[in-house]
This record gives sequence, C-alpha cells and structure tokens, in this order.
Amino acid sequence: MSNFSKNRFCPTEINQQELRQRAYNQRWAELPEGTIPLTAADPDFPIPEAVQDSLKEYLKGGYLSYGPPAGLPEFREAAASRFSARDGIDLSANRIVAIDSAASGMVALARAYLEAGDEMLIFDPVDFLFSHGADKAGAKTARFKITASDEIDWDLFESLINPRTKMIGLCQPHNPLGRNFTEPELRRILGLAQKYDLWILADEIWSDIVFQPSRHVSMLSIDGSAERTLLLQGTSKSFGLAGARIGFIALPDSSHVENFLEKSGALYTSFGAATLSQIAAIAAWNRCSQWLAEFVTHLQSQRDFACERLARLAGVSISKPDATFVLFPDISKTGWSAEALSEHLRQYAKVAVVPGSERWFGPGAIGHIRLSLATTRDILDEALNRIESNWPV
Amino acid sequence: MSNFSKNRFCPTEINQQELRQRAYNQRWAELPEGTIPLTAADPDFPIPEAVQDSLKEYLKGGYLSYGPPAGLPEFREAAASRFSARDGIDLSANRIVAIDSAASGMVALARAYLEAGDEMLIFDPVDFLFSHGADKAGAKTARFKITASDEIDWDLFESLINPRTKMIGLCQPHNPLGRNFTEPELRRILGLAQKYDLWILADEIWSDIVFQPSRHVSMLSIDGSAERTLLLQGTSKSFGLAGARIGFIALPDSSHVENFLEKSGALYTSFGAATLSQIAAIAAWNRCSQWLAEFVTHLQSQRDFACERLARLAGVSISKPDATFVLFPDISKTGWSAEALSEHLRQYAKVAVVPGSERWFGPGAIGHIRLSLATTRDILDEALNRIESNWPV
Repeated sequence: MSNFSKNRFCPTEINQQELRQRAYNQRWAELPEGTIPLTAADPDFPIPEAVQDSLKEYLKGGYLSYGPPAGLPEFREAAASRFSARDGIDLSANRIVAIDSAASGMVALARAYLEAGDEMLIFDPVDFLFSHGADKAGAKTARFKITASDEIDWDLFESLINPRTKMIGLCQPHNPLGRNFTEPELRRILGLAQKYDLWILADEIWSDIVFQPSRHVSMLSIDGSAERTLLLQGTSKSFGLAGARIGFIALPDSSHVENFLEKSGALYTSFGAATLSQIAAIAAWNRCSQWLAEFVTHLQSQRDFACERLARLAGVSISKPDATFVLFPDISKTGWSAEALSEHLRQYAKVAVVPGSERWFGPGAIGHIRLSLATTRDILDEALNRIESNWPV
Repeated sequence: MSNFSKNRFCPTEINQQELRQRAYNQRWAELPEGTIPLTAADPDFPIPEAVQDSLKEYLKGGYLSYGPPAGLPEFREAAASRFSARDGIDLSANRIVAIDSAASGMVALARAYLEAGDEMLIFDPVDFLFSHGADKAGAKTARFKITASDEIDWDLFESLINPRTKMIGLCQPHNPLGRNFTEPELRRILGLAQKYDLWILADEIWSDIVFQPSRHVSMLSIDGSAERTLLLQGTSKSFGLAGARIGFIALPDSSHVENFLEKSGALYTSFGAATLSQIAAIAAWNRCSQWLAEFVTHLQSQRDFACERLARLAGVSISKPDATFVLFPDISKTGWSAEALSEHLRQYAKVAVVPGSERWFGPGAIGHIRLSLATTRDILDEALNRIESNWPV
C-alpha cells in the first residue's frame, strides 16, 4: 500500500446508499446489492463541491429560460480558455458548441459531417459510440486493428482509406486500450487526413485522465489540424457529471458552427444542452483543478495496484495504460470467452465487468474484459480479492 | 384593471437584470436594452421556489451519475401519476420516456416512427417543430388549414390522407391559434387515424395553460387512442423550465418504449435528459400546483387585457384564445406584411413580436403576428402602449 495516495479520494468518501439510488448504466442502481460494479466508466465519487456550490448559486438567480443555441457565452468562454491553456492551443469561444454529452455530440457530428454510404475509419477495438454515430448517419465504419502499445503500420492504415472514406475517428487517449497517441502518431493521422481530405473526429473525453510521465497531446495542438478536426469533449470521466449530460464540440471556425447549429437542430431548440449543466461544467473547468489532480493521482495508484494483481492471474496478459481509468486485460489464454468469464465473475465473485464484446468495442476486443478503477481503494481491493478467489483457471 | 389578478405574478416580480443575462431565443438577452420581448413562449417569471429547493436538496446527495435510459424511476412515476390524475387517464410509468425538451422529443419521435418519404398530416398554421421533426426524419408534411374557431371540414381533412400518410400531428391546445380542440374533434381525429392506421403525435405541451371555462382534453383520454398516440409533454411553458430542457413522451406500451430507446440512442447514452432537469420536473409536477394555478389566473387576465386593446387597433382582427399564453392577431387588413410590421414595431415601438411567417408556422400564418403574454401586467401594459402609439395604420 506504499503508493496509496493520501488525498480526498482516500480513505472511503463514497456513499453506497446514494449510488444505489443514482448510479445507473450497469452500476450500483442496476445490480443486486453486494455486487461491485467495475463496469461503466463513471466514478464512484461525488462531484466536486465547487460544482454543487456553483449550481446552488446559479439557482438563486431564479431563471432557467431558453439558452442560446451554441451554449451560454460564459460556457463557450470557459471551454475555450480552459482547453487552450491546458493543451497549448488557441481555441476561441466562437468555435465551441455545448452538447448534451459526448455521446450525443458523436451522433450529431456524424450526422452533420457524413452522408449515407460514407465511411469512417476507426480503430479496433474502440468505444462503440464511434460506430453508433456512423450508424445513425447511415455511414459505415472500417476498422484498423491496434493494441495498447504496438507500432502502427501506417501503410496498412492508409490502405483502408478509399473514395468513400470521409472521416477518421480518433479516441485520444484511447478507450478501452488506455493508449495515449504520441505527437508523431497524431502527425501521421493528420497527414493522411490532409492527403485524402478527411475530417478527424477527435474524441478527447479522456484527456484529463493521463498518468505521469505521459501527458495529453490534443489533435488540435498539431499544426494544420484545426481546419479538419472536430473535437469532442465531455465532463463525465473527469468530474463525475455523466448525469448532467454536458460536453462540447470545437469546430474549425464559426461558419462550421453556424452550419452545425442548423443541421443539429440547435438553432430550433431541438438539440442543445441544459443551462444548469453548462453551469456545472464551467465550475468543473474553472474551480476544480486541485480536485482533478488528486483524482488522477488516486487513479494512477489504483492502476498500479490493480495491474499488478491482475497480471498474476492465470491466463491474463495486461499492459499498464498511460491514460483512462479503465483496464483492458487480455483473458483469451484462460480458455474462457469474455462473456462467459464476465458472467462467472458476476455470479461467483459478485463483481461486474464489461465483456470485450464485438458489439461494444469491435472485433479487436474479443478475448478481453474491461474494468473501471474509479472507486475507492477499499472497494477495488475487495473486488480484486473476490476475482482472485473465484478465478476459474 | 378590475380583473388584474392578485397573486404572486402581480405586482412585478421579475428581475430584468437576470433576464438580460439568461433569457435567449429572441428575448431579453438577445435584444437591445429597452426593447420588450413578446417573442418566444417563455415566461418572464422565475421558476417556482419549490423547484429550486428540490434541486438544491438533490445536489446535497453529491452524485450526478448516469441516469437510466428512459429516465429516473421517480421521474417516470411522477409524470405518470400527475398526468393520469390531471387528465383522467390511466398512464403507467413504464410508458414514459424522459426527453431533453419537447422539441427534441418531436424530432426523436419523427425519426422513430416515420421513414423517408412518409407523410405527416399537420394543421396550418402550427408550430414549426412539427415540420422540423418530419424534415429530420426525411418525411414530408401535408397541411390542413384551420382557424381559431371555425368548424373543421372533416371530409376535406380526410381527403389529405393518402397511402404515404403515416402520422397526424396534433398540437393540443394549439400553438399559435390558442384553439383547444373539443372531445368530439379529438374523436374525429382518432377515428381517421384508426381508419387509415396512422400514428397520432399529440403535442400537449400547452395543456396546463387552458382558461376557464375551457378545460384541457388529452388525446389519451379518448377511448381507443392509447395504442396509436405518441404523447409529447414539456415543462417550458408551464414552469419556465426551457433552459432545463426536460419533458417526456408517453408511448402505447413498454415494447414501444424499448423500441424507442433503441432507435433514439437513449439505450446507448447518445440521447436522454439530464438527471438534474428530471428532478426539476418532478418538483414542478408534485409541488407547484398552487403556483401554476396562480400563473394561469394571471395569464387569463393578461389575455383579456391584451385582446381588448389589440382588437381596437386599425386593421386588426383577433380571437380570444382558450389556451396558451400567445395571441395570434390577424393583421392582414393593415396592408402591412407580418415581417414589415414586426420590424416596424421593433424599431419604433421597441417591442419584439414573432412575425407569422410561413417558415415558423406554415402558410396559414401569413398576415398574423404572435405575441407572448407571459410577463407582468406593467410590462404588457407598456408594450401595448408603445404598440398603440406606433401603430402604422
């Protein structure tokens, strides 16, 4: 326990009673009492107090009238300045649009930038929302297989680009592999996007959760990327705000914004983000950097703790992720399928994990399970004890 | 001023400074200082204190985790029991899905129930969101012309139904005419929907704002309607919660709900309503009936006050609406177009109204303007003074 972080995430600060009321998406509220959910990437920790305080203060104003289509001016400013400063980029508020979650933004961007029959080139495995977005736009996906750390064969990657390809979907850092693409890798992706005139849909929702000595490199920090990058950000991973449904997209310029507001329906109030949720995000970005730093420190310690123990299990191969709070061990050598193993763990260990099924992550996920680390050390320890005691190999 | 209601909406309770910060959608925050917005249907009054209190109480719980796809169980229960009791219907929670505004629900329902090339039969004029929804689904609209009170020619209505027609879009009560369809009229609509096997998209967002002696009749209260009615509800008109983006749809049964959750993306977190906003709606429905009763009393008094004065203006013909807080005078006899008159009023009277343009309400709106009454008597009085002084005829 030497690397057990001493911060507000330790010792136990979570309220299981509240979580059983409020944490859905395969978590506490949806599982039998006694089962530990290491499922959806949603922290077990309460939101920062500064977010609660900002919301209470805003409510005193008394009005929850219609907000503007692109989001409150103060929201757009806060997003632009926070991410400009963090990523060393020059992002202006007039390129920002508030969205009701990165998931919703993924679909809206796909619908705005792809047409039926177009193709999006995505990595395999990767979060299902990329193919979900393409699907809603009537587009197809082509998948390029990667691992947590292997060199990328760029010729093979390029060979998947064809005349129907209109977009590259990038998850940076990468869920579920925890891979943090390097600057040279992002340059290669941009170079191909330039060569074939493709959009880059850069989902950087995990970019706050990067472990030392790695650091986040935003696609927008690569010279020449701005004009073809559609950046996607959210607050569910960094600040536990999944239920607030709030994130933003950054587009190449204000004319793209006008076009997106029209196509998404935001101009007509049929798409948009709640103003209260925007206030929550502003507080998270402006007032919670210490909270976030402690959260990431805790997660890094959780990662080290869990990787070491999972690596000792028979038939498990695991790489330590540079980013994200999910682990994605390869369990194919156990001889169990991910689905059967997950079911076994749920039944006997009373621990819920996400099977690396093709449906959720693509064919490259087969033979893996995904576990979330965003809980207390005590709960993670207990979950690992139970997994070890009930490991079927 | 004899019918000036003595309740919390009188005297002035509004905070123009906050409104200039928060009220968008052609309202205070988007207009030059000194201009009175009678534009978007969004009240100038703060939200009920009980809603603020509920939100503050909920925040104390500390978690804003992922909510369930169809909405929080307590939200679905609150919606079902409030509307069952109010409308004398038997609506169960498992037919309810939380949506992030009626506008968003309109598009999601059109996408879920219509295919490209299908037709929706709608009234003319009517709120643009019906055609907007159809458009997003790749469907067309056919328009049946109605007025605020004329008898409906059902043979003519039926003649617009053809093999491509899949849905009737009903706005009950009707925006912008303020018409409150009667039970016999709803029965005729249902009869045709049954005869031609059509869905009825019943937008009842205005149903709390009905003036005595009229009363709201829900399409769901008509025998045999449940299996083909897609009910749409929101909180922006009744409780000033436009910025919270929260409403619900009620579907025929739980299998429709499952299908809608799949098609809308709610099952995959790419569609849904913020949990905080759901908490606001629960409080509005459960704890604000007195607030709402006083609001409606005030609005009825506003309607009488404004109709009487507008009717005296040269070239204006107006019918007193049974419902909604918008007036829709016919100004065609002024010789001015709605656009030119609206621009004139904005420039000289410093009052903003919505021109009855084809784009926003359909061709049946030409020659009308729309004014919102959801402000204080003082502001409405001042707006009418200015309109009268600057009436160009």
